[in-house]
Amino acid sequence: MSSKGAIGVFDSGVGGLTVLKEIVSLLPNEKTLYLGDTARVPYGSKPQKTIIEYSLEDATYLTRQNVTALVVACNTICCLAMTDLEKAFELPIIGVIGPASRAAVNLTKNRRVGIIATEGTINSGVYQQAIKQLDSKIEIFPKACPLFVPIVEENVLEGVIAEKIVAMYLTELKEKQLDILVLGCTHYPLLMGPITRFMGSKVTVLDPATAVAQELKQKLTEYKLRSDSKTEGSHKFFFTGQPQKAEKLIRRLNIRIDSIEQANLAAPPVCGCS
Amino acid sequence: MSSKGAIGVFDSGVGGLTVLKEIVSLLPNEKTLYLGDTARVPYGSKPQKTIIEYSLEDATYLTRQNVTALVVACNTICCLAMTDLEKAFELPIIGVIGPASRAAVNLTKNRRVGIIATEGTINSGVYQQAIKQLDSKIEIFPKACPLFVPIVEENVLEGVIAEKIVAMYLTELKEKQLDILVLGCTHYPLLMGPITRFMGSKVTVLDPATAVAQELKQKLTEYKLRSDSKTEGSHKFFFTGQPQKAEKLIRRLNIRIDSIEQANLAAPPVCGCS
Repeated sequence: MSSKGAIGVFDSGVGGLTVLKEIVSLLPNEKTLYLGDTARVPYGSKPQKTIIEYSLEDATYLTRQNVTALVVACNTICCLAMTDLEKAFELPIIGVIGPASRAAVNLTKNRRVGIIATEGTINSGVYQQAIKQLDSKIEIFPKACPLFVPIVEENVLEGVIAEKIVAMYLTELKEKQLDILVLGCTHYPLLMGPITRFMGSKVTVLDPATAVAQELKQKLTEYKLRSDSKTEGSHKFFFTGQPQKAEKLIRRLNIRIDSIEQANLAAPPVCGCS
Repeated sequence: MSSKGAIGVFDSGVGGLTVLKEIVSLLPNEKTLYLGDTARVPYGSKPQKTIIEYSLEDATYLTRQNVTALVVACNTICCLAMTDLEKAFELPIIGVIGPASRAAVNLTKNRRVGIIATEGTINSGVYQQAIKQLDSKIEIFPKACPLFVPIVEENVLEGVIAEKIVAMYLTELKEKQLDILVLGCTHYPLLMGPITRFMGSKVTVLDPATAVAQELKQKLTEYKLRSDSKTEGSHKFFFTGQPQKAEKLIRRLNIRIDSIEQANLAAPPVCGCS
């Protein structure tokens, strides 16, 4: 059994599970703790002050357990609270903006990149800045899609409703001759089917989760924090709301569940991950 | 100018504006203060403890200003936090469950009543109990519709998406030979068009707002709290999130706006309503 701690992954809801899935695929021997703040989702339309406060509570909940690194699997939090998280905690913190932006810049050929995300992420302008810093000649087309998170949370992932809502938000982007569309919200990969069908074969729809998992692996190696276990790591799940809906999604993503419980952010459990 | 205070109306978001509209129509000389907790909407899928905590904060914000009566224009709060609100505040508090239940019982002929609402409201069973207490022979058909609040908040009130989402939730109710369908969430009257068309002419779709405004009028008269002003009352609006989207809806509902601002629940403004 490894003496190293777990990787703490958190999100405003269930979207970060798409990132967790990539982490588990790439680093199968690592233990993970996942926290989804489903009682307060969505974060995307809330004021920055609220998002900072909630994110610090989320991260505190995980770091009070035995955690070696934190993955912020939520674009809204990365855009609006990353500086505060980095100030508050001393362990390595991996966000989604950097890996996603580098992947987009590496993949684009015509330098026309679309970004879809929550209102909070889009209005922050953080993605736009991150990509411009890497290549100032890239033209960026941002678009907020506020109903994508609620339909994913309600498990409407295919069919007429998903298709019409995708068309409602993406019609204006389809006319922009993009070659890359970044999914700037970790819920959105769950709508990959209708989004790729609507955008057509000339647009690569980019799920940043793979790039995030690779960056995590690199950082853990660099800081000598990789698990020395030879067996598969355990995966524990905490949700501030009722965990039943989330559990269905975890099973569909085919991630093993070692425990799942409702979390009280004011009173985290004593570390049970060593 | 009246020396009486204002009527405080609050909701988790913009839905309660449909109740405010009926209050302003029936009691045009009363001053009103409206608080929408749009930064933390929706309440419907949150744990009861969280809903109680938020509701007490909302009501405290209003009662620190000069308020004569409170209208809880949110079914979720009425179901899960009414007892706590009544313990915490001494002024008259009018909810939506009582007036809505009495109206449903008075109107039904075949004693088959549907109720649609958020998950919190439906799972609480409060509507079911309230109606059964008035007439134990009524058969009740409850159904949670979690996407109705997000589409209303996103202004999707007509068209294919609204129609398909209405059909997704209401198909099972359509087969039950209801004669009354209670809109058990104050957001839902904004979807009155697609809901009434889908349910057909044999079902009366009941918006409880009229019954709530009548009960308020009766209580204010009973406690001698009616405004003695001869002119139209002022209408002030507070939202914990950005007020722009809400402002559009207030204008569509044709309620005059005397002031509208973002609210900080920790620091309410000094009373400006006398």
